[in-house]
Amino acid sequence: MNAFAVAGAWQDIDQEESIMGAENNESRQTALSELRQVLDGRLSTSEAVREQHGHDESWHPGVLPDAVAFAQSTEEISEILRICHRHGMPVIPFGAGTSYEGHLIPTDGGISLDVSGMNEILQVNAEDMDVVVQPGVRRKQLNAWLADTGLFFPVDPGADATLGGMCATRASGTNAVRYRAMSENVLALTVVLADGRIIKTGSRARKSAAGYDLTRLFIGSEGTLGVITEITLRLYGRPEAMASAVCSFETLEGAVNTAIQTIQMGIPIARVELLDEVMMGATIRYSKLDLPERPTLFLEFHGSTQAVAEQAEEVAALAQDNGGGEFRWTTLEEERSALWQARHDCAYACKALRPGCENWATDVCVPPSRLTEIISYIRGVAENSFVPAPILGHVGDGNFHMVFVIDPANREELVEAERINDLLVAKALEMGGTCTGEHGIGLGKMAFLEMEQGEGVEVMRTIKQALDPKNIMNPGKIFNFQAGTVHQHGKPSLAGGSV
Amino acid sequence: MNAFAVAGAWQDIDQEESIMGAENNESRQTALSELRQVLDGRLSTSEAVREQHGHDESWHPGVLPDAVAFAQSTEEISEILRICHRHGMPVIPFGAGTSYEGHLIPTDGGISLDVSGMNEILQVNAEDMDVVVQPGVRRKQLNAWLADTGLFFPVDPGADATLGGMCATRASGTNAVRYRAMSENVLALTVVLADGRIIKTGSRARKSAAGYDLTRLFIGSEGTLGVITEITLRLYGRPEAMASAVCSFETLEGAVNTAIQTIQMGIPIARVELLDEVMMGATIRYSKLDLPERPTLFLEFHGSTQAVAEQAEEVAALAQDNGGGEFRWTTLEEERSALWQARHDCAYACKALRPGCENWATDVCVPPSRLTEIISYIRGVAENSFVPAPILGHVGDGNFHMVFVIDPANREELVEAERINDLLVAKALEMGGTCTGEHGIGLGKMAFLEMEQGEGVEVMRTIKQALDPKNIMNPGKIFNFQAGTVHQHGKPSLAGGSV
Repeated sequence: MNAFAVAGAWQDIDQEESIMGAENNESRQTALSELRQVLDGRLSTSEAVREQHGHDESWHPGVLPDAVAFAQSTEEISEILRICHRHGMPVIPFGAGTSYEGHLIPTDGGISLDVSGMNEILQVNAEDMDVVVQPGVRRKQLNAWLADTGLFFPVDPGADATLGGMCATRASGTNAVRYRAMSENVLALTVVLADGRIIKTGSRARKSAAGYDLTRLFIGSEGTLGVITEITLRLYGRPEAMASAVCSFETLEGAVNTAIQTIQMGIPIARVELLDEVMMGATIRYSKLDLPERPTLFLEFHGSTQAVAEQAEEVAALAQDNGGGEFRWTTLEEERSALWQARHDCAYACKALRPGCENWATDVCVPPSRLTEIISYIRGVAENSFVPAPILGHVGDGNFHMVFVIDPANREELVEAERINDLLVAKALEMGGTCTGEHGIGLGKMAFLEMEQGEGVEVMRTIKQALDPKNIMNPGKIFNFQAGTVHQHGKPSLAGGSV
Repeated sequence: MNAFAVAGAWQDIDQEESIMGAENNESRQTALSELRQVLDGRLSTSEAVREQHGHDESWHPGVLPDAVAFAQSTEEISEILRICHRHGMPVIPFGAGTSYEGHLIPTDGGISLDVSGMNEILQVNAEDMDVVVQPGVRRKQLNAWLADTGLFFPVDPGADATLGGMCATRASGTNAVRYRAMSENVLALTVVLADGRIIKTGSRARKSAAGYDLTRLFIGSEGTLGVITEITLRLYGRPEAMASAVCSFETLEGAVNTAIQTIQMGIPIARVELLDEVMMGATIRYSKLDLPERPTLFLEFHGSTQAVAEQAEEVAALAQDNGGGEFRWTTLEEERSALWQARHDCAYACKALRPGCENWATDVCVPPSRLTEIISYIRGVAENSFVPAPILGHVGDGNFHMVFVIDPANREELVEAERINDLLVAKALEMGGTCTGEHGIGLGKMAFLEMEQGEGVEVMRTIKQALDPKNIMNPGKIFNFQAGTVHQHGKPSLAGGSV
């Protein structure tokens, strides 16, 4: 259970439950007893299990599901959804619980459908460089399994998320600049629809023009259109050599321009991560790095031994032109691991800035040429705030995170973080960017989605209403089922009483 | 006007028109007079203009639209669709007319909405490597415009198609093995929906997790969900060097395995095209190539001077291991152009096999490891047929074409081509592939889509019905609006009387 829950968020539950009518409640009780028949011992109503499934890694206050169903197969999920559809019982698919925008919170109760037990790697087609997995397989598990094949799956959102969850949120991460995001690395899905029908989208062909691209419709649908129960992923050959590099810059602009010019020159860089001076300060202290407290790029190159050396030298020259300091690069596994461990530990480094506090990690993505401007702008805002807010990001894609390190029990801090987040997203949209590059909408960014996509949200709503007319699939996420209604779950500036 | 039209396909028109009720007809007349008000001189009912818009480059018999509207702006298209929506008038978006599966044929009459005049390049964002274009911009026009910027747009389906059309059919082509297909190279769209509403999908950010991926829903929707009126595309830096290569093989298997191993080794090859011995025979004669009549790979490498040399040498070694003959590679522009001109002239080379005949070009895509098997199988079928059927394809992706060179006035030949095509697609599906890698469904592959996607087609239909309840957008394409109805337009084995 995360600290937000400890901080009293569970008080919300009663408010939510009181909304339910008695009739509704009766129907749900019937659903639960029918589900118990199907799932036998795998339907849990224990307080501990429900609490574990009542939140994600966001600041949003948790809500208990009515029960947690531990599913074992596509067919079983189909049966579960038929029951829930019949009785109007909400269903929230649950993988590793690592999402950041409240995606997994059962704001209207219902069933948390835990697919983490469906974690088999079903088929490795090494010659075709694809793999078929169940949705509960985690990315590290997959790569460990693939170790002997010479292949790997590159998408790396940091957390050891499930592949089902990574599909559901259109995840990406540090490697996306070279290998792209989930939406570009999934060939096919098996999906159970809200009414229990099972469909297969896509195929094992590497491309297709066969009708509407349903695969991509479900990727990023955050569990609101169906449950993903099988995934066919593209794999890549493990590069012969990998080199990592680090370089500090006098200015933020110098760091960002180095990243932009690297992409423009077509250098197939595998990772290019920016840490601003605040983030570097935190990381240097937490991971004991011998680096200056300045804007810094962490980089990685994949290719032949000759190619990675060539790439590293080209980028080193660009860095020098942009006021970079010493450009240290290495192919030694130990040094490479230490660097990326520090990058992956950034979340802990942030928390260590204020012991006992938690991270609210937001993300936006802008056209890369606007990165310097938006980061300078929001850095300026944050410098005049009492909330620490380090910045780090996948600058090759124009995507970055600001991490508000706050005490979730302190309403003033939540409201202040919300204020900065509002300014950040507004600026990103003004620049032609998006309110989220990889975390998704969940509960946290519904209003921003309306600002960004306008009438497009009405089209999303039309699709949702057509495919899930009873609104049982993860209700209340991404947008409101009925236009014009406003969801206020856990909004810091309005729900102060509950936090 | 293509040869199929000359061959008597226009006889279909009366049959189609006779289906229309008198009431329907009156409503359409009202629509036409309202459209005339909006479009002034840009609504044409001339026979010649309607004939030009009544077919594509497929074998499918043409049908005349009621009129052709030459649109000039998003707002005007919105007004046109409002009128057509009110009166139930079909609308078929039309770009360059180069599609292969009957996508553009107004099987139920209506308006052919020609956007070829909307051909402005609106914004080049060189630093962000993106460009905003109108849908009538053609790919060669775009690349000529970009010549001075050091950037280019790589997707190349062969024909000089419009970018709107390339979005609508999820086009790809020779460069997709490195740069991917349209769906992976479009950042944002402006779309006019069936009822005239205008939406913007995506943004200029290079990735996003903001709600449902509407961009990808419209890419490949073949004009059945709305009209694409603005497109934001990813661009790429022009590589410092390009090298082309050609290599003949003793066996088909040797050629295919060389392609597969190249991909597996992570060599970032830009093009790898297979021509089978029949296709090589035709090309050698047509383009006067000094090459043996054997399975042959045409290849291209992009990168630094050093990198392309390295890549070419690596692939040459693989080719030798697989029984390849001399591996000739060059960076000389003149020799490179001659090679790719021959590749792009393959369609003419096919036609030259039987003067006066036409090409029916089909396409499937399979997991690459199955390529040898499926090509050998269908080669065997074709060898026992009286219809010449060369094979060529983008083997790095597992995608290839068979071209039936037939006399469209000869029903027996159409039925024979259909028989081989049926066997080809059935085999591709059996192998876990798709009935079309890049040409789309149109009229020609509707039954195959049902075989491939099953219940998924019902989901597509649900989306179509929700977004275009009056079925005005390119009706009768991809799938039937009502489940269970069967569309037989121009089916060779059934519509013999009309061809």
